[in-house]
Parts: sequence; C-alpha cells; structure tokens
Amino acid sequence: MHRVAVVGASGFGGAVAAMLVQRHPSLELTAITARADAGRRHDELYPRYRVPLELEQLDPDSIAERADAALVAYPHGAAAPAVSALRERGLKVVDLSADFRLDRERYERWYQPHEAPELLDGAVYGLTEAHRDEIRQAELVAAPGCYPTAALLALWPLRERIRDVVVDAKSGVSGAGREASPTTHYVAVAENVSPYKIEGHRHSAELEQELPNGASYTFVPHLIPVDQGLLASCYVTTDEPLSQDELSELYRQAYAGEPFIDLAGEPPSTADVRETNRCRVHAALVGERVLAFAAIDNLWKGAAGQAVQDLNLMLGLPETEGLE
Amino acid sequence: MHRVAVVGASGFGGAVAAMLVQRHPSLELTAITARADAGRRHDELYPRYRVPLELEQLDPDSIAERADAALVAYPHGAAAPAVSALRERGLKVVDLSADFRLDRERYERWYQPHEAPELLDGAVYGLTEAHRDEIRQAELVAAPGCYPTAALLALWPLRERIRDVVVDAKSGVSGAGREASPTTHYVAVAENVSPYKIEGHRHSAELEQELPNGASYTFVPHLIPVDQGLLASCYVTTDEPLSQDELSELYRQAYAGEPFIDLAGEPPSTADVRETNRCRVHAALVGERVLAFAAIDNLWKGAAGQAVQDLNLMLGLPETEGLE
Amino acid sequence: MHRVAVVGASGFGGAVAAMLVQRHPSLELTAITARADAGRRHDELYPRYRVPLELEQLDPDSIAERADAALVAYPHGAAAPAVSALRERGLKVVDLSADFRLDRERYERWYQPHEAPELLDGAVYGLTEAHRDEIRQAELVAAPGCYPTAALLALWPLRERIRDVVVDAKSGVSGAGREASPTTHYVAVAENVSPYKIEGHRHSAELEQELPNGASYTFVPHLIPVDQGLLASCYVTTDEPLSQDELSELYRQAYAGEPFIDLAGEPPSTADVRETNRCRVHAALVGERVLAFAAIDNLWKGAAGQAVQDLNLMLGLPETEGLE
Amino acid sequence: MHRVAVVGASGFGGAVAAMLVQRHPSLELTAITARADAGRRHDELYPRYRVPLELEQLDPDSIAERADAALVAYPHGAAAPAVSALRERGLKVVDLSADFRLDRERYERWYQPHEAPELLDGAVYGLTEAHRDEIRQAELVAAPGCYPTAALLALWPLRERIRDVVVDAKSGVSGAGREASPTTHYVAVAENVSPYKIEGHRHSAELEQELPNGASYTFVPHLIPVDQGLLASCYVTTDEPLSQDELSELYRQAYAGEPFIDLAGEPPSTADVRETNRCRVHAALVGERVLAFAAIDNLWKGAAGQAVQDLNLMLGLPETEGLE
Repeated sequence: MHRVAVVGASGFGGAVAAMLVQRHPSLELTAITARADAGRRHDELYPRYRVPLELEQLDPDSIAERADAALVAYPHGAAAPAVSALRERGLKVVDLSADFRLDRERYERWYQPHEAPELLDGAVYGLTEAHRDEIRQAELVAAPGCYPTAALLALWPLRERIRDVVVDAKSGVSGAGREASPTTHYVAVAENVSPYKIEGHRHSAELEQELPNGASYTFVPHLIPVDQGLLASCYVTTDEPLSQDELSELYRQAYAGEPFIDLAGEPPSTADVRETNRCRVHAALVGERVLAFAAIDNLWKGAAGQAVQDLNLMLGLPETEGLE
Repeated sequence: MHRVAVVGASGFGGAVAAMLVQRHPSLELTAITARADAGRRHDELYPRYRVPLELEQLDPDSIAERADAALVAYPHGAAAPAVSALRERGLKVVDLSADFRLDRERYERWYQPHEAPELLDGAVYGLTEAHRDEIRQAELVAAPGCYPTAALLALWPLRERIRDVVVDAKSGVSGAGREASPTTHYVAVAENVSPYKIEGHRHSAELEQELPNGASYTFVPHLIPVDQGLLASCYVTTDEPLSQDELSELYRQAYAGEPFIDLAGEPPSTADVRETNRCRVHAALVGERVLAFAAIDNLWKGAAGQAVQDLNLMLGLPETEGLE
Repeated sequence: MHRVAVVGASGFGGAVAAMLVQRHPSLELTAITARADAGRRHDELYPRYRVPLELEQLDPDSIAERADAALVAYPHGAAAPAVSALRERGLKVVDLSADFRLDRERYERWYQPHEAPELLDGAVYGLTEAHRDEIRQAELVAAPGCYPTAALLALWPLRERIRDVVVDAKSGVSGAGREASPTTHYVAVAENVSPYKIEGHRHSAELEQELPNGASYTFVPHLIPVDQGLLASCYVTTDEPLSQDELSELYRQAYAGEPFIDLAGEPPSTADVRETNRCRVHAALVGERVLAFAAIDNLWKGAAGQAVQDLNLMLGLPETEGLE
Repeated sequence: MHRVAVVGASGFGGAVAAMLVQRHPSLELTAITARADAGRRHDELYPRYRVPLELEQLDPDSIAERADAALVAYPHGAAAPAVSALRERGLKVVDLSADFRLDRERYERWYQPHEAPELLDGAVYGLTEAHRDEIRQAELVAAPGCYPTAALLALWPLRERIRDVVVDAKSGVSGAGREASPTTHYVAVAENVSPYKIEGHRHSAELEQELPNGASYTFVPHLIPVDQGLLASCYVTTDEPLSQDELSELYRQAYAGEPFIDLAGEPPSTADVRETNRCRVHAALVGERVLAFAAIDNLWKGAAGQAVQDLNLMLGLPETEGLE
C-alpha cells in the first residue's frame, strides 16, 4: 500500500481525488488538508463520497511522515509553494493546478511570477495518452486542465496535420470551482448558455505548448447548465486533405489499447462519461474540414481521475487501478 | 402618471419590481437605488428587463422630490429605516421585506428589535385577496413573503375550518436571493432537493398571524432546482368533516371574481404561472383530509407582482393594471 | 383590427404565436387549429399563455371566413398544402415551417418533393433585418428557422467579407418540438450536452442561400439542457484582415435602428433574451479571426416572435407592435 | 460465482441492475433481455454503464440454462408471467415490479387481475431493513417501489407509534420510466414542480400493508426536475407524545448496524445519496409532530440496488457486496 495525502481536498477536484484514493485498492489515504475548511470532516462536506477523515491545515513535515505521495489540488499560485515543500521532503506529487503545466515563459504570461521555477524542468505534463513513459519516470506531474484534456484528446491523433483549429468548448459549472460567485449562482446558470473569455483563455496556452508549432488556435469556452461534464467540439483545417478512411485510421492507431479512450461511432455526449475517467472521442470528415469531439467528466478525466491515473504510473501500479 | 421609485432594485425581487413599474401604463419609474451596485445601469445587470436607468445610492430627500410612492426591496432590518425615511417625506410605500408584516411581538421573536415600531400600527398586510379594502386606504403596505403568499392562498377559503395543517413548500432558488452562497451554487442545487429550517421557518409566523387562532401549523420549506416558482402543498385536518361539494363551494365563493386566482381542475404546476402574477389553486378531499395546493412565481405574486398589485390599490388604479 | 388565425397552435412555436396574437393590440385571434389536439382548449394545454380558445380541425373555408391572415406552424411537408389552401382563399400567410424558406432545388435536396412549388416564387424569406422591404410587399413569408436566424444575425453585417465560417450552435430542447421522444426525455437531456447531425444540418441550407456564394460553411448544432434559448457561436475567416474598429463599425452600421437587435459589449447569454423577440449580438476580433455570437429565444425571435414581426410589416403595422 | 440474468435490462431500473451485476465480484452476468430493444448492445444504449452484452428476447429455457438467479425489471403485469416461467425452472428471482409486493386483494384493487397468484404466498417484500431474515430464506423477493422504500425507511422505527401520517414525496424523472411521454419531456419538467395522483397513489398500498393497521395515511407524490433522486418528507402524529430523546433513541436502535442507512444530523438531500444504495434518514420533533425524512436514489436503493441487496441475502453473500 502506498500512503497518499490529498492537499486541498475540500474543493470539487480535490474532493474527488480524496474519494478516489480512499477507494483505491493499492493506495491508503493517510491525510487530507484544506485551507478554509480545516477541522471539518470530509464526509460532512461531501456525504456521498464517504471519506471518513478530518481535513487538516497543511503541515508539510507532518504530511511527509505519513505519506509517500501527494495529490495537490490548490488553486494556481497557492499550489507551487505547497508542491515545493512536499517535493523537498521527498514525496512524489501530482499537482492539479496550472503551476507546473507550462514552461516558465508561458506561465508567467498567463498567470503570475512563478514561485518554484526550479521544479519546472522536472515536471511532466500529465496527459497520459501523450506522455506515458515520461510520467512513469517523473516525480512531479502536472495534471492537465479540464479544457486542454478534452481538446488535446480530440486532436492528438491529428496533431501533425493541423493547420488551423477552432475549439468551441462547453463546460459544466463544477469546472468553475466551489467558491460561490455571481457566475455560479443557480439562477445565473439555469436555463442559460454563455461564452466567456473569448479573447483568449489560459487553457489555450496548454494547447499551443502541446500541439506542434505553426498551427493557429482559437479556443472559446462556454458555461452550460451542467454539473459535471465537458465537451470540446474541434473544427480542424488540415494541412492537406484527408480521406475519412485515413482519418479513422489515424484515430484507431493512436488510441489502440488506450484504456480510457472510447472511439465512438457517433458524436459523444457528456452524460456518457459522467463520473468516469473515460474520454469519448469521435472524428469525422465533413466537407474538407475535420470535426473532432471529445467528452469527459471535468472532475475525473479532467482533474482528479487523470491525476490518479498519473499517480498509478508514477508508482508502478496498473494504470487503470482504482478508476473502473 | 404616478411617479414611483424602487429602492433596492438590484436584488431579484427589486429588479422585477423595477421592470414592472417601468412597463406600467400609469406609473413612471423615476428612480432606482441599490446599495452595492449603485452607479451601474439596471439593464446591464438584468438585460432582459430593459430598465434603462442607473442605480443610485438611496437619498430620501432626492427620492421624495421625484417620487410619490416607493417599492422598497431591502432585506429585513435594512428596510425599516428606509421605509421610515420615505414615509416621513410623505411617500406611499409598499415594503417587500418582513419588517412590516408582523406585529411587534412576532417580529422581534423571529427577527430582531424593530427599528420603526411606530409605523407598525398603520401597516397593512398586503395579501390582496384577504385585505383588499384596508390596502386601498393604507399608506404603508407590507407585501407578504413568498411562502406565506402561496400557503395562505391555498388555505384562505378554508381558514375557519382548519384544525391542523401541514404545509410542505417547495421553492425555486431565486427565493434565496441574489447573494452567492454555498446554498445557491449551481452544483449544490442541480439534481437535488433538500428540506431546510424544519424546526420552524420565519414565514410560519405570517401563517399564524393571518389564520385563526387555535389551529396548529407545521411548515417545512424545501429547495428545488428551479429558478422561479413556488408550490405550497397543504394537508389540512378540518374541525368537522367536509364534503367535496362543500369544499369546492368554499373555494368558488372565496375566489369568485379574484383577478389573479385560477381555480384549477387539477393540482397546479409552477411552470403554469411562471412570470405571471397569478396563483393557481386546487383543493380536494382525499379520505377525510383536505389537500390544498397553490403555485405562484415567487418573484411575482410572491414579491414584486403582489407589491404592484398593492400599489395599484393604494393609488386608486385598476388592481390588475400593468400585471397582465 | 386584423383578424388572424393560428394554424397548428398546439406545438411549442404555434402556441407562442397564438399567445402573441391574442395579446396584440391590433390583431384579433379568431381561430386556432391543431391536428391531434383539436377539441381541447389552448389554456388547458398551456395555462400560462392564457389563450381562451378551443383548438379546431383546420377547415380552410371556415378559417377564410373568419381571418384575413394566418400564421401556420405545421411541420414541414404538412405546411405546404395548408398554406396553399389559405393563400387560395386570399389570406396573407406567414409560414413557420421550412416549406417556403428555400428555393426548390435546395428544398428538395434536404427535405422532400415540394407540394406547392408554384408559391415559391412569391415567398419571401422572413428575416426582417435582411428583407424588410420585400416582406412589406409580400403575401407569403417564410419565417426562418431558429438556427439560421441566430447564425444569420450574427453574420449579416460581415456577409460580404466571409471566406469561411464555423457555426457551433447550442439550442434548448423546445427547438426539437413538443413530441415526446427519447431525445427529449428529461433524463436524456439533463446534465448533458450533445452535438448532433454533424454531417450537415438542414438549416445550413438557409445559411448558404442567404449568405454570398463562394464562402464555405460548417454548421454543427448541439442540444443543451435549456428549455428556451439558442446561441450561435460563429468563427469567421474573412477574405482580408479587418481591424476591430472596422469590425465594430460594420456591426454598428448594419444594426443602427434595428428595433430587436442589441449590440452587446460582451458575449451574449441566452437568458438575457428569454421570452423576448430580441437578438443579442457581439462580434470581436481575436487574432485574425472574427468571433461573432448571437443569442435568441428559439420560440420567439427564432419562430413565433419573428413571424409576428413579419406579419406586422405585411399588415402595415408598426414592426414592434405586440412584441415588447 | 453465481450466474445471474437481468430480464428487462433496457429500462432505467433494469439497466442499473445489469450494471451492478456486471461489476459484482461474486456474480456473473450471463444474459440480459429486453422486449423492444432486443438485438442491441447494452453499452450502446447506456455507454457509461459499460455492460458489453447484447440484449436478447426472453426465452426462459435458454435463461435457465445459463443462470441460477434473475432480476426481473418488467412493468407490472408483464412481470408476473416472466417471473412464473423463471421460478418454474428453478431460478431464484428478485422482481422489481409491483406484481409480488402486495397481497392479492390489494394488488387487484390497485392494478389488475393477478396472473400468478399461486406465487404470492411465497413472495417476500424485499425491504431488507424490515424483512432480512425472510429474504434470506426466500426464492422470490419483490423489491419495494421507490416511493414506499423511502417512506417506509423514514417511518420504520416509528411504526408502532403512528396515528396519522402525511407523506409528501418528491421524485426525479427516472422514476417515471424510460418511455417518452408528455410528462417526461424536458420542457415539461425543467423549471417546474407538480403534484400528481393526489387522490391516491398505488404505492400508498405498500405503506398500508407494511405499516400497522389503524393508522391513517396520506401520500402525495410530486415530480421535480431531477434525474435520479427521491425524498420522502413524512409528517407524523404519534399516538402519544414522544420526547426528542425518545425519538432519537428509536431511530438509533432501529438502524444500529444497518449497512445502508445513514442517520443524518440534519435533513437529507437527494444529491448526498446519488448513485449509491444508501438511504439518508433524519427525524425530529417539531412541536408535537414528528418530522421524518428519507432520501434515496430511486434507481438504486429504490430499485436495482435494493434488488441486488436482496439477491445477496438470498444467495448467502455479504449483504453489501457489489454495492459500495
């Protein structure tokens, strides 16, 4: 049994992470921390997840005594110092924030001065389907954002052929986090759909970093009245025309044997992957354009599920353990 | 044209009040105020209501120069001083808060020390169907709460016969107000239903005040994943058995000619009254118990619509003007 | 008063049409028909619309005696014969189906053999902002589909400059009609989002007909858990680069004085136009691409509201009458 | 490994049953049947349940060769002959319909002439918390309805003390079944709440059968815009006054050691038990009345989960196996 702490277990992503570790046959959940909710029991905040532990304030020394690895689910900026403290004490870490996803230049352009830049070199971008071997060797993995996870999985098999892509993404509200705000008020969300941050969303930086240079990217997120679920609809102009057969073959080859990718015969629905770590993908040629869709649960494959998938690899466990 | 100000026009109820006054053929909306949102335009906060005015800080002298009457939609406690200031300057006022609904003893038991007790004697409880004549003469009317409005309208024709009643009420989220909170977060509300304040809700005090002494009341509110809408399901034990015919006759007589009451042939749905000032009522004898249901839009008949209905009466206008 | 019949008033679009005519100050609703629901009262099917008439079986002779104009809200295919019968009897008609929106070749490619092709020449495509003058002269107007309405209004000011456009559209469920089906079951829709008909939707034919030749169009509809509301997110590659100023100027000029178009300072939300005839539009330059968004209520500006707007013009009434 | 068939696996309850058997460590899912959907794969109808089998037409002989037990999830009336055929062939059966829940007199009053009355004597009502020992011995168990499950679990510890009870129940739409109908159309359900069958619901017969004679029951179901989830709010007049301490003690004793009952410190929410086999219960004394609430997932503890719990007992397996 590997001993695992979840740091920041009171937010939506961290709460799912705690639940997944708690249920995992080869992991033992030894500590959970929270900033605002320390002192409360997790199963009081999230009864259905049934994690019978009390949330603590983060004390890296204490965590290091009790855990061999940690999932960190703090907001960006707050994550880097916590990750740094845990790495210094020898824990393997999967970080769910943006702090270790991007190279320094990209990070500081979109976010803020980086607080632990010395760790960036060793950090691996945790999209399993793209970086599996590096993740196995890594001691620090940055779980991708929910939007890039879906977009990249829709586009990955096609990545060498993209000249231009529009990603129109639709996300459920849990992606906006647990904090109450006018944006997440039920009355603002119900019976509504809204585009936001159309001038450039931070997550498009992850697309640009992971996909080949030279292509152009347009990424627009939309908020929809859904709790958990994210759909990326990608409209791709390829460098040269593809046939439908070539397209299908690209996806079949890229995803053969991938345990969490479902190549679907029709466009995917988010409900089909709700509360699973699966990503359902469909690509079709319509006219000369490739339409590629991917649906995930933003809290699972888009956050905590993928983080556990990464951790499984880092610990030498079967990649799918605890996730099916 | 009567000149009307809406004080507290940035909350959900006040916003509807501003919209209704703005569209009212015999009223002119001359000022709207807000505490936190002063300086912003109303149609920026609520585009579909199309009120092209800027929210001001409340200045009673300035309001008194521009308005003959006011609808006040502040939270309880904050309302009393504002109402007092406007009444001193001669404005007729309909207050949407709890501050003038209850006698002093009841108010101070459920809320807090009253800040303008001298006004209580002249304040009329604004349930039009119950107090129409007094409202016509009043200079200060307290619009009933959304829960009591529905429950009282379900029960009013039966009020002399009630020995015991259970009110199981279901409200949409706009009833909880515009402030963002864990309770109103989309993720907390969607796909969920919860009872709350089961040990006694403030609004049951309005029932007890308005219905005859001697009966016993159980009132339990529930939050449901609905934006606007409120259903009161009332389970009544009567003093003596009634026949279905007697029951139907009681309701027919009580509500004959009522412009906003629909006696429905079947149990009402909240969607049937959404964004209307109507209350849809159905009563049936099942075994020896009377089941009485009322559905309203909590922001209209349960707040702003009823307030305008009251104001119409106070100003000598047709009761339904601007509400159909 | 112009006497108006609504043919097919039991579906969602027809029901709103009946309600709008009923409330219209210069129109008199003299008859409503339905195929399956004839014999039932409209206000029993749709209590909140408060149309106190009984649905009849369509008898063109009888309708012609009582009405000068008709709104026809039958499904495509069924509409053409009904429209034909009413036109023969001299009524002005606005048809809400697809039957008179397209030229014959396009119609028969996407739908079926046309049953009244002789009427196509005189039919005007009822997008008011594009064809106002023709509509004034017309005796038969085809109200545009909900998807093309939003997409065309997002793109109209830019129409001469489009080289390529992706329209990613999101529609509420009322757009799928009143018939119960697995697709419209609450359980299938709630907490879900799905693309559908990605290989080419009938409504893209309207885009291609109305927008200039030579551009390429990709149109993908998505179903979202919303009752009424439709958002078109349009991603445009222009022939030559535009500046943001040029772009803004194009939209300002095109829509100056348009009574139902709101040029918004930020991307529009469907809730902002719910149950209004308004279309909220926003266009921005992001990189070299133009992003243009339009939000409508699919049953109002996307169907019945626009049909009444057309009818107002055909009858010489103020364009906005009965719609505000 | 016990070999299990799920008969009627294409409806909502049967689909969950198939998923639960498929994932159960001691059960092998050997066949699934459906009437209308035979020939289709289950994971095409319900991708997220990941049951990789094809739905067959029911052939009792063939099933009997491959299975030792069956979960039958047919509608009432259709279930009895199927259960009869499977019992004749020696299979242990848990039936999810109403066909074996009631004594013959009650069944035929509420439903129709019984088609296999000879099996009624041996059938056990499968509310585990009430009939655990009988279920262990049974060869035919009738899983309770979703409404009675919640109401009975709310009331069970109090059953000897009830003089009168009002059950106001709120159910998600999956309880109405998979068939598309006007009632389950998204547009009819969203932003709405409706009471129905107020004059007496079939499920109240289960309450009357299971709870002691002499008490009076009022049961009113409501439909709410929720996918999966059911809340029973019960308002009880007891024979003699109880103290809060006595009340709490009754519930603690009754449910001590119950693996699926959570005694909550506050009123339960359906979201807290979504997709679990748990029932969350809270009882409080308010005035002289007992308020007792129970929340379940109608497809799990209210149908398929409870059926598997029953089957575990019938097969001598740990009661919670495959359900946590």
